[in-house]
Amino acid sequence: MLAAGPVRAATSDRAWLQAMLDVEAALARAGGAPPEVAASCRAELFDVAALGAAAAESGNPVVPLVRALRAAVSPEAARHVHRGATSQDILDTAAMLVARNALGLIVNDVSAAAEAAAHLAAAHRDTPVAARTLMQQALPTTFGLVAAGWLTALDGAADRLAAMRDSGLAVQLGGAAGTLAAFDSPSIVDRLAEELGLPAPALPWHTDRTRIADLVWPLGTACGVIAKVAGDVVLYAQTEVGELAEGQPGGSSSLPHKQNPVAAVSARACAAQAPGYAATLLASMGHEHQRAAGAWHAEWAPFTGLLRATGSAAHWLARCLAHLRVDPARMRANLDITGGALLAERVGAALAPKVGPTEAHDLVRDAVAGGRPLAEALAEHFAPAELAALLDPASYLGAAPALTDRALKLHGERP
Amino acid sequence: MLAAGPVRAATSDRAWLQAMLDVEAALARAGGAPPEVAASCRAELFDVAALGAAAAESGNPVVPLVRALRAAVSPEAARHVHRGATSQDILDTAAMLVARNALGLIVNDVSAAAEAAAHLAAAHRDTPVAARTLMQQALPTTFGLVAAGWLTALDGAADRLAAMRDSGLAVQLGGAAGTLAAFDSPSIVDRLAEELGLPAPALPWHTDRTRIADLVWPLGTACGVIAKVAGDVVLYAQTEVGELAEGQPGGSSSLPHKQNPVAAVSARACAAQAPGYAATLLASMGHEHQRAAGAWHAEWAPFTGLLRATGSAAHWLARCLAHLRVDPARMRANLDITGGALLAERVGAALAPKVGPTEAHDLVRDAVAGGRPLAEALAEHFAPAELAALLDPASYLGAAPALTDRALKLHGERP
Amino acid sequence: MLAAGPVRAATSDRAWLQAMLDVEAALARAGGAPPEVAASCRAELFDVAALGAAAAESGNPVVPLVRALRAAVSPEAARHVHRGATSQDILDTAAMLVARNALGLIVNDVSAAAEAAAHLAAAHRDTPVAARTLMQQALPTTFGLVAAGWLTALDGAADRLAAMRDSGLAVQLGGAAGTLAAFDSPSIVDRLAEELGLPAPALPWHTDRTRIADLVWPLGTACGVIAKVAGDVVLYAQTEVGELAEGQPGGSSSLPHKQNPVAAVSARACAAQAPGYAATLLASMGHEHQRAAGAWHAEWAPFTGLLRATGSAAHWLARCLAHLRVDPARMRANLDITGGALLAERVGAALAPKVGPTEAHDLVRDAVAGGRPLAEALAEHFAPAELAALLDPASYLGAAPALTDRALKLHGERP
Amino acid sequence: MLAAGPVRAATSDRAWLQAMLDVEAALARAGGAPPEVAASCRAELFDVAALGAAAAESGNPVVPLVRALRAAVSPEAARHVHRGATSQDILDTAAMLVARNALGLIVNDVSAAAEAAAHLAAAHRDTPVAARTLMQQALPTTFGLVAAGWLTALDGAADRLAAMRDSGLAVQLGGAAGTLAAFDSPSIVDRLAEELGLPAPALPWHTDRTRIADLVWPLGTACGVIAKVAGDVVLYAQTEVGELAEGQPGGSSSLPHKQNPVAAVSARACAAQAPGYAATLLASMGHEHQRAAGAWHAEWAPFTGLLRATGSAAHWLARCLAHLRVDPARMRANLDITGGALLAERVGAALAPKVGPTEAHDLVRDAVAGGRPLAEALAEHFAPAELAALLDPASYLGAAPALTDRALKLHGERP
Repeated sequence: MLAAGPVRAATSDRAWLQAMLDVEAALARAGGAPPEVAASCRAELFDVAALGAAAAESGNPVVPLVRALRAAVSPEAARHVHRGATSQDILDTAAMLVARNALGLIVNDVSAAAEAAAHLAAAHRDTPVAARTLMQQALPTTFGLVAAGWLTALDGAADRLAAMRDSGLAVQLGGAAGTLAAFDSPSIVDRLAEELGLPAPALPWHTDRTRIADLVWPLGTACGVIAKVAGDVVLYAQTEVGELAEGQPGGSSSLPHKQNPVAAVSARACAAQAPGYAATLLASMGHEHQRAAGAWHAEWAPFTGLLRATGSAAHWLARCLAHLRVDPARMRANLDITGGALLAERVGAALAPKVGPTEAHDLVRDAVAGGRPLAEALAEHFAPAELAALLDPASYLGAAPALTDRALKLHGERP
Repeated sequence: MLAAGPVRAATSDRAWLQAMLDVEAALARAGGAPPEVAASCRAELFDVAALGAAAAESGNPVVPLVRALRAAVSPEAARHVHRGATSQDILDTAAMLVARNALGLIVNDVSAAAEAAAHLAAAHRDTPVAARTLMQQALPTTFGLVAAGWLTALDGAADRLAAMRDSGLAVQLGGAAGTLAAFDSPSIVDRLAEELGLPAPALPWHTDRTRIADLVWPLGTACGVIAKVAGDVVLYAQTEVGELAEGQPGGSSSLPHKQNPVAAVSARACAAQAPGYAATLLASMGHEHQRAAGAWHAEWAPFTGLLRATGSAAHWLARCLAHLRVDPARMRANLDITGGALLAERVGAALAPKVGPTEAHDLVRDAVAGGRPLAEALAEHFAPAELAALLDPASYLGAAPALTDRALKLHGERP
Repeated sequence: MLAAGPVRAATSDRAWLQAMLDVEAALARAGGAPPEVAASCRAELFDVAALGAAAAESGNPVVPLVRALRAAVSPEAARHVHRGATSQDILDTAAMLVARNALGLIVNDVSAAAEAAAHLAAAHRDTPVAARTLMQQALPTTFGLVAAGWLTALDGAADRLAAMRDSGLAVQLGGAAGTLAAFDSPSIVDRLAEELGLPAPALPWHTDRTRIADLVWPLGTACGVIAKVAGDVVLYAQTEVGELAEGQPGGSSSLPHKQNPVAAVSARACAAQAPGYAATLLASMGHEHQRAAGAWHAEWAPFTGLLRATGSAAHWLARCLAHLRVDPARMRANLDITGGALLAERVGAALAPKVGPTEAHDLVRDAVAGGRPLAEALAEHFAPAELAALLDPASYLGAAPALTDRALKLHGERP
Repeated sequence: MLAAGPVRAATSDRAWLQAMLDVEAALARAGGAPPEVAASCRAELFDVAALGAAAAESGNPVVPLVRALRAAVSPEAARHVHRGATSQDILDTAAMLVARNALGLIVNDVSAAAEAAAHLAAAHRDTPVAARTLMQQALPTTFGLVAAGWLTALDGAADRLAAMRDSGLAVQLGGAAGTLAAFDSPSIVDRLAEELGLPAPALPWHTDRTRIADLVWPLGTACGVIAKVAGDVVLYAQTEVGELAEGQPGGSSSLPHKQNPVAAVSARACAAQAPGYAATLLASMGHEHQRAAGAWHAEWAPFTGLLRATGSAAHWLARCLAHLRVDPARMRANLDITGGALLAERVGAALAPKVGPTEAHDLVRDAVAGGRPLAEALAEHFAPAELAALLDPASYLGAAPALTDRALKLHGERP
């Protein structure tokens, strides 16, 4: 119900049907079949729902498709349809086509999210915000560095997705036993690969499922990155924190004040599907002998599901980040709610030469523990301006701006 | 693509829509809304695809549904639609309705499979077959006991499924914050429960997801049982074993001899989806505060997916077992291929009094290791009839028939 | 590294060794072996590390144990050791003993957590706190109802754990092929069961792994409940929310102000292990024939891991809740930070008769959207006392106190 | 219990301790601490068990380690211990060291398995064996091509493992908030990286867990490949198939004929742990803000578990394949048990010109269906020598030998 963005259509039953037809067409061309065969390989000529029902009945979507395709051409041409191939040749290669297309779309949305993160990082390079560890305010940092962390992770996700699309896929062709015995020459594999613009593999990979399981990597880690970023947005958008808000929040008919971060919430929900699908794909790698007795069929749902969940998560996140509203004033105000405790370490170090290290440590610790603002507790030890400077979070940011610059530079240098 | 049997329709988008409408109708009746509201809660009056698209856009299927339902009734009645409820009240209760219906259908198919296993157990109570451990022949057993093991496991699966349907479900109603603040009285929960024939819970369970995750138990273990039985069928049906065959095997256009155990293979593939869905459901239990920021939405796909996968697996297995062909002669022949080694333990014990324990052990061990049939190696030590009796697997079955009787008795005593 | 509480020892290598010895001792007694055998079944007589190394080498912990046990008794007694049993009989029954013990310990810690939740619910029955949905403040509720929700979920978890301990376990005994062929009588199973205080099963369950996978249910859902409660604590303890704090927080040597909710964090981390272990156990149910070729061995790590993770999570949570500090003043203050928006629905309804429904709705909506406190925006329409009453969250709690009472009553009626 | 091979020690508590000490030593050197600090960073100086217990108590292994290390050096040196770092800096970088070492060991065992597969492929380049699909004999292939398929998959697994070791790791250093505020210069990261021979990252990656989750890819897919190969061995070693046997099978004291493929079985069991661990690692990527409230701790068990399971699986498989016994005669005999049905396709094509295509198809189909050997059924249509040639599986191997050569060539060309 949460499938969103272009990946929805790209992984639909219709898209799978067209991908299988594309493979049959390419095989027909590669094998010298009459042009009529390839010309008939258009999804709009077939009844998707009827083929789906027949597939469910027979446990194999290729068998009814080949039957329908043969019926759609002349008897002479029908003899060339699917010649020498086995069902798995068609479906595995179609899976590669679906993956190639979907991965490209997912890269687009991940990249859009990254681009939005880059804008945030640049715009807030010097905006102080509380760094939070275990959900407790710890030290100051900048929102620029926070967004730079999102950026770097999203760029990494896009890189992995693109790399798998560009070099992880391959055609499948081996015939019933993987020996190509029903083809005139093994060169048919190269011709099919050329037709489809996919690499040719060293061997048929009917029961070496690494290529399928490889997808767990870019998709599963992309979902993890998206879960991190979307989760942060949800936390920053809490009523009591209020440092971020979605630009197009979800409302509520009965509760007029609600500003639900719906895009981030939906991104999290989609991303949460990945670990389970990943487990199913990895657990299904043990294909028996030359064709599995179940493990191959078991791949179909998680393969599609993982592409779809990742693409939807990326789409929701891109929408979330593109319209994100940042409230630097609220960030600044939240930095002050601990009465300077965020800067205790720095203040203690400055106090030590004046009162001795032990006394300094105790003084600071007791003030913080008692909830007494450090500005008040330490007023007698420092000149007002000096104390204000020590307690200014904007001047205790370490390398945050420099690290942000580095992340933006690396982002800018991407091809 | 492998969804099979009645659970397919029972978990479809259309079924979900009608379940949500059933909840709105029951809520309308319980809350005293004009009859017009409940009368309009019929799925055929709505556009499933349009509502699905709107749900994907807004991240919530109830919001567009309520809008459509309000538009379908008079303005006066519209004010009563969904009154006091929150989206999650509707969708969670609808999930209970979908689960109740689907669980019943799954029980039917698991019970049909169990019934077929009971027939096999009774028919082959005394049919010897090799017991295999780590895929090696170990000792004789009976095919009756093998089928009785399937039977007991399937009956257990049906019991767990039925128990969860009968006492694990409950209506959800709490309003926006779970306090029922927008209702006149908490008794609305009881009235809704009565309308729908579901129990009322102690508290609204918006963020205690035990009821949802409970389904992992009967569904996940049912899939495990199905995987075991279907896996056994596939192994017994191997060309080299040949002791079982599906009555309606899948063929191959190019390979006329293939008798693929398609139903068992499909059952395995469906059952293999369960662990991943289970992991996603369990991992999604950590709902924040009074309404989760993603974890609730994350349940929807695995909830439906797990019901559908289990129901499909059960349907395929019932089809497989109902038409299973047993070949007792092949079972008997396979018992002989080790030349009596399956009975080495028994023969050694009989030989010991004649030649001494050490000599007996060595004699038997050497014969087995050398591949020499025991009937030949031990001919000088026993009378032919005595040796034949010792090497008869049908007379070394232990308690196999008695255990089979026990399993059948327990099955027969089920309500 | 996070294993905590009594379950750590109860699932240790030493505990497994003693459990296996307990089974051998019971089998010896049940089978009429010389008393010497049972008397030697004490873990302290054996070298745990050496047996562990031998188990890793042979892929089976029972084989080296039986060898060591035979060497520890007289030759006469040695012939009775393990007689008629197969390795899996011993290890499966030992698993039941480990589970029975560990489940009891986990019930204790879950019950302790529930008891602490009950105290919180009773103590804060009428303490207003913001109900938060999607991490946004939505309406008022009570912290009593929040804790009552934890209580009900934890009680449910304890019930499931106890039920599985009390009726889900059974001895395993079938011999090499599950036919009991090497025993004089099938009654040996009942005698073994009596010795160990475990039920006797209908059939040997060597390859029906439902009993093992059943544990996924109470353990997996308990972890989910723990994740929910611990996650709530972490959120309430945020610096910006500050409504809860752990009584024994983790500190930081360099950051004196940090009050890390370490127990809740550790509980979350332990609970997060459950879905993966659950998936592995469910995926391992497809045991082949009469003894699996890998799936049995695959159970061992997730079986122990799931017990240990759940017990540790429960222990951390009990520690967290027992010392939880509640800040009702902060809860009250946080209710005010939206300027009354939490009560917009109620105020709007009261305003409608005065200015008309549309004007009322718009007036309220505009005030909230503009961040104007409702007390100010509506001052001209209500008497001060009336307005104050309308905007008092403590008087808009719906059934929260009544629901809390119900949960406490049900808790008090538990056996 | 099944941990085997060198990865067992490389992922032990002791190995983790030394890795953490290696990081502290490198940080001391990079930060200009007195040499005494680095010199004290030797695991044998510390009590592993006591540190482990303290870690379990505090939920963090670094805190007690730093305390112990400070106590082990002079007060002057103690001030330099761990200076500027946060616990996660140490543990994350230690994880990289553990992974680098373990990945190398796993590559060794996977490569040993690949080498054994290469020997099998070369030795049996032309050995006919039945290709089996859905566990049914389908067509002839060669055992060389079967082993070549294993080889290609194992080489791919080794490549992924080595690639991740060589370019997927990086030091972690950011201090409490990831801003490096407590260090004099960000260049400390580069110095630490140089000390440890690990790359420096673009940013601290405390809450971008891609580097951790990346390991799911090479480890998860390696386990899948191992599961495939080990599963094939188990199937080929079945009593009724008998084409392969382990050279060092597991025996049984009571059943002298058992030849259990223990190494393959253990490999399967270890490999089966991967999907669950993978799911947990992927599900734990959503680290909050600048330090996670549980998700970081949740990584530890699956991180170690996944390395250990994969290394053990690889070790068992290498042992299995190195001593594998191949029975070409049994392979040949099994090719004949269908009476030529494996060559039905070829025979039918040869018969068509003689009797017409329809008659040819029917004739062949009826013979196969009736269980009549094709040599007999078709005797009248072919000369005996011609028929024998047509029914010779060794002459219908397609490109099997050529594909085997290609896989061996690619293997030989590896660096």
